[in-house]
Amino acid sequence: MADTPAMYEQHRSKEEILSGFTTVEQLEADTAKLRELACAACAETWADRSAGQTPHCRFGEEGICCRICSMGPCRVTKKAARGICGADEHAIAGRHYLRMAAAGSAAHSDHAREIAYVLRQASPTGSFPIRDEEKLLSLAAEWGIPAAGRDIYDVAHEVAEAGLNEFGKPFGTQRFLSRATRERQALWEKEGLAPRAIDREVSASLHMTHMGNTAEPEPLVRQSLRVGLADGYGGSMISTFFSDILFGTPTARASEANLGVLEAEMVNLIVHGHDPVFSEMVVLAAEEKEMADHAKSLGAKGINVVGLCCTANEVAMRHGVRMAGNFLQQENVILTGAAEAVCVDVQCIFPALGPLAGCFHTKFITSSPVARIPGSIYMPFEPDTALEQARAIVKLAVENFVNRDPAKVFIPSHKQPAAVGYPTEQIIRELDGVTNSHVDERGSYMPAIDSIKAGVLRGAVAMVGCNNPKVRPDYSHIEIMKTLIRSDILIVATGCAAQAAAKAGLLSKDAKYMCGAGLRRVCELVGIPPVLHMGACVDISRMMLLVNEIANDWGVDVTRLPIVGCAPEWMSEKAVAIANYVVATGIDTYLGIEPQVKGSAEMMRLITEGTRKITGAGYIINTDPHALVQAMIDGIEQKRALLGI
Amino acid sequence: MADTPAMYEQHRSKEEILSGFTTVEQLEADTAKLRELACAACAETWADRSAGQTPHCRFGEEGICCRICSMGPCRVTKKAARGICGADEHAIAGRHYLRMAAAGSAAHSDHAREIAYVLRQASPTGSFPIRDEEKLLSLAAEWGIPAAGRDIYDVAHEVAEAGLNEFGKPFGTQRFLSRATRERQALWEKEGLAPRAIDREVSASLHMTHMGNTAEPEPLVRQSLRVGLADGYGGSMISTFFSDILFGTPTARASEANLGVLEAEMVNLIVHGHDPVFSEMVVLAAEEKEMADHAKSLGAKGINVVGLCCTANEVAMRHGVRMAGNFLQQENVILTGAAEAVCVDVQCIFPALGPLAGCFHTKFITSSPVARIPGSIYMPFEPDTALEQARAIVKLAVENFVNRDPAKVFIPSHKQPAAVGYPTEQIIRELDGVTNSHVDERGSYMPAIDSIKAGVLRGAVAMVGCNNPKVRPDYSHIEIMKTLIRSDILIVATGCAAQAAAKAGLLSKDAKYMCGAGLRRVCELVGIPPVLHMGACVDISRMMLLVNEIANDWGVDVTRLPIVGCAPEWMSEKAVAIANYVVATGIDTYLGIEPQVKGSAEMMRLITEGTRKITGAGYIINTDPHALVQAMIDGIEQKRALLGI
Repeated sequence: MADTPAMYEQHRSKEEILSGFTTVEQLEADTAKLRELACAACAETWADRSAGQTPHCRFGEEGICCRICSMGPCRVTKKAARGICGADEHAIAGRHYLRMAAAGSAAHSDHAREIAYVLRQASPTGSFPIRDEEKLLSLAAEWGIPAAGRDIYDVAHEVAEAGLNEFGKPFGTQRFLSRATRERQALWEKEGLAPRAIDREVSASLHMTHMGNTAEPEPLVRQSLRVGLADGYGGSMISTFFSDILFGTPTARASEANLGVLEAEMVNLIVHGHDPVFSEMVVLAAEEKEMADHAKSLGAKGINVVGLCCTANEVAMRHGVRMAGNFLQQENVILTGAAEAVCVDVQCIFPALGPLAGCFHTKFITSSPVARIPGSIYMPFEPDTALEQARAIVKLAVENFVNRDPAKVFIPSHKQPAAVGYPTEQIIRELDGVTNSHVDERGSYMPAIDSIKAGVLRGAVAMVGCNNPKVRPDYSHIEIMKTLIRSDILIVATGCAAQAAAKAGLLSKDAKYMCGAGLRRVCELVGIPPVLHMGACVDISRMMLLVNEIANDWGVDVTRLPIVGCAPEWMSEKAVAIANYVVATGIDTYLGIEPQVKGSAEMMRLITEGTRKITGAGYIINTDPHALVQAMIDGIEQKRALLGI
Repeated sequence: MADTPAMYEQHRSKEEILSGFTTVEQLEADTAKLRELACAACAETWADRSAGQTPHCRFGEEGICCRICSMGPCRVTKKAARGICGADEHAIAGRHYLRMAAAGSAAHSDHAREIAYVLRQASPTGSFPIRDEEKLLSLAAEWGIPAAGRDIYDVAHEVAEAGLNEFGKPFGTQRFLSRATRERQALWEKEGLAPRAIDREVSASLHMTHMGNTAEPEPLVRQSLRVGLADGYGGSMISTFFSDILFGTPTARASEANLGVLEAEMVNLIVHGHDPVFSEMVVLAAEEKEMADHAKSLGAKGINVVGLCCTANEVAMRHGVRMAGNFLQQENVILTGAAEAVCVDVQCIFPALGPLAGCFHTKFITSSPVARIPGSIYMPFEPDTALEQARAIVKLAVENFVNRDPAKVFIPSHKQPAAVGYPTEQIIRELDGVTNSHVDERGSYMPAIDSIKAGVLRGAVAMVGCNNPKVRPDYSHIEIMKTLIRSDILIVATGCAAQAAAKAGLLSKDAKYMCGAGLRRVCELVGIPPVLHMGACVDISRMMLLVNEIANDWGVDVTRLPIVGCAPEWMSEKAVAIANYVVATGIDTYLGIEPQVKGSAEMMRLITEGTRKITGAGYIINTDPHALVQAMIDGIEQKRALLGI
């Protein structure tokens, strides 16, 4: 379809629109400027520390260093092929890999547990009322919890307890496994991958990898899949459902992204971390008129709450709160000199923020016993008094405005509009909009499936993961996404990948102009951006719901769908847990950072090819983003060919 | 008291008796001879691999290498004081330390979980009947589980389920905390150390140490104490109680120890690992007449089951099965060329046994999905068919006798008699023997307490832990124990420490001749050896029962007792968990191997002094066994002085 001037919104030309997107080079120039300011303020940034840590220890990078007992550390060298106990490179790398998956699963799931405890205390008059009764009632029905004639809060508390039992029940497997296709459930059962209680899988993983236990790599890889599933269909899915019940299921809404969302004349309060229990309260408290008045009385024009990392995703999807950036941008926010407070909950918080905040007027506030960080003001968050505590935090930020040093302020101007909030429910809603209700059933993925079958869309990619200085940060995310949408491949994104997309403008509806003709037509017809924002990293559970539901609607096994996952810049143990449950679900996973098992040929074989025999999927690893995206496109086309479409 | 010839058993002179003990030098000479045979057989041993791994990586040894995310590995150097995220040496060392404690707790507890599942399936006609009804009923009463008029197996199954719930219950703290003194319980509550569900503490520890979470060392040390307590008063205590219920509470009995227990003319079947569920069945199967007949039909004089590591402790205490050795002796057993089968369950199994067994006729049999090891025959053990499976294993060993190569056989002659089996119940029974039942209450520790108060005994030491090539193996154990008993300090021992004592002859009643006059008198009056064998490493829970009961009987807090713990050669993560619950119980713990936190001055301060402010106890670390034992004696004398005794 040829472009005509009339097609461009607000009478902008195609060139104007295309030149309005933020490039990686622009992002990097902003960071470079802020890094100069850091030098001036005697502060260091991740880039300095990354330089200091390079080259990395090869033994660690290749996974052949073992620190599991105090006879060591041992490492595999030409001279010494085994550790003191006799563990070889396969055992050593395999154990470390499983421990990473277990720790990732523990992290996501412990986050979920906190939300479950909050749900169990939900009350209509407390800080945490129920905001999505429909989702609560449907989950209660799914779990066999009676609701008819009962107080909704009694139902909520029973659902919460059922959720809490998923962490430690002595019998049975995870309830949410039922959300997978029947074929998948049967396969997990047959292969011994169906996870039991979440925490049990974590403990069992540590036990297996304890000195003197499993030294054979395949069982370690199998347990990695299982403990991963305990995250994806356990902790993360519980977290997503319970967050939606408590804070509302996200819906499509407008936001903005990048450092330009900081306001020179307002109190800037940054929420950072992962757990919406905390950030929701801060957002609510900051909206109160008394707070705004207080800010004004101190010379500010108001209070500007913005998000960082996955907390940004959570509050953007539910409130449209603007997003200051992703993982490797966390220091930049303080370096602007315009951050009155950075309030954090759990995960991915740089310990560097303590000393860095000390170089500026920024108050660095920690709130969770799980994330105690030197140099922070520790205000442990209690569900009972959550809103009052959030008010105290907002007040602290507001009253810190007068301490801002204008000479130190530099806020880069770049920001991009972003359409956020596409959980499965929203995607179905969008698809219903293009369904002919006289002919087709509503509430299904058939319009999307039909587009894929017709070749209008070639397939879909789930873009996820973190940032990592081992590659050019955000570059991999953005380059890969641009190539994919140009190739008519729809993207769903979460976590730091979604934020990278947002910063580049790929979550804006204008991004359709970067797409191939097919995807562009879909974006126009449905009214969506080509990259759909599905939330935080725990919300990769939403992606699992999506693929299983699509597979059911399509009537083929998940492995056959032209849908893959990609984590081009992953860095955390959570990412290892995620990669494992995605592969266990039957979805090929493309990694741009090498898992630390390269020193074991056997482990490399198992994670790339070995899992294919078990789950039908595996990793494809390439640190070059261009090669990685090409492999992905080839993989999708190959799946299409096998489907005969 | 002067020695008179009449005092010596079997008309042996004191000199004869003293010269009959096995010295460390003799143990080492045997090992050296076996190592020569290894060279001849093209096999390697831990000593070869230890040489190949020395010097160890300093960063790992000092705990300042971080592999928690894939941005790294990072390590603290002069040039780079922080990892890429900003974690400093305190965060890095502290996180690794907590992860070791968590993995140790997971290992012990997962072992306990397996026993709990077996108890839940106990049946009078199956492989696992109840052998200690009294203990079952008393535990049921303690836990509020009704027993009157019920089938004992129904009670057992309900007790088992209650135990299983300790791993994952969403509310409350560990039931067995009630076995601590009231003061201790109150302190744990106040300090936030009372552990919740066992697996939850494990997961929470991994979450706290995940990238971007806790970077402050004190909370990491506090959580180490808590996850340690989840082991000591959770998993380990459940394991001990349930094992006693299933297999009988151990009682004092005679055994023998060291490689000399292998029999040249018999089928030697070695049980190795930790979980008595497995080894009990093998022991029973090997006692069946059909098996002995089968062995005889193949030219053997019978079947000789012997134990290694903690499995040796378990089966020695309940059956008198002889003990071939401890952790660093596991390869020696195969090197004798006389081992028809080594059957293992979980933990502390060298992966080296696979290739080593391949150099001999030895069948290496693994039985647990937790410990899959290359080069082994994997026979997964199922409670339902346990005895039949054990018979199959015994048969395999018996039929392997004909494959033994006499030219390769060398069985060192050293062995020592050992009195084993002194759980708290046995200690009380022994003390009752010297109680004047007309004057004193029976069933108390008062006779022992009175001896300590009177100075006849100066105090007691719990000797525990593994072997570690970082020190001269067994030398630290044996030297320290000899010095302690010479100083009138009674020893209770478990694990590899108990085995070291056994090999040296310190578990024999003759060892009284090595004691100071006070301890010797106690040994003679009560009829015990100076080193009391309390079991496997999970049975350090028995030591916790002991000190808390003594504190209650004495009427002083645990920290004030002249009782300390010592792990001179520890190596495993379980040891880190143990050290933490011992310190949390208020008992000073003397370590002969440095915890891997030396690169953090703050962590070193916290584990040696910081915990003292919280629990009243801490670590005293010295790699020189002579200095370590002197520090221990000084510590005990100081506690005596503070008590005014």
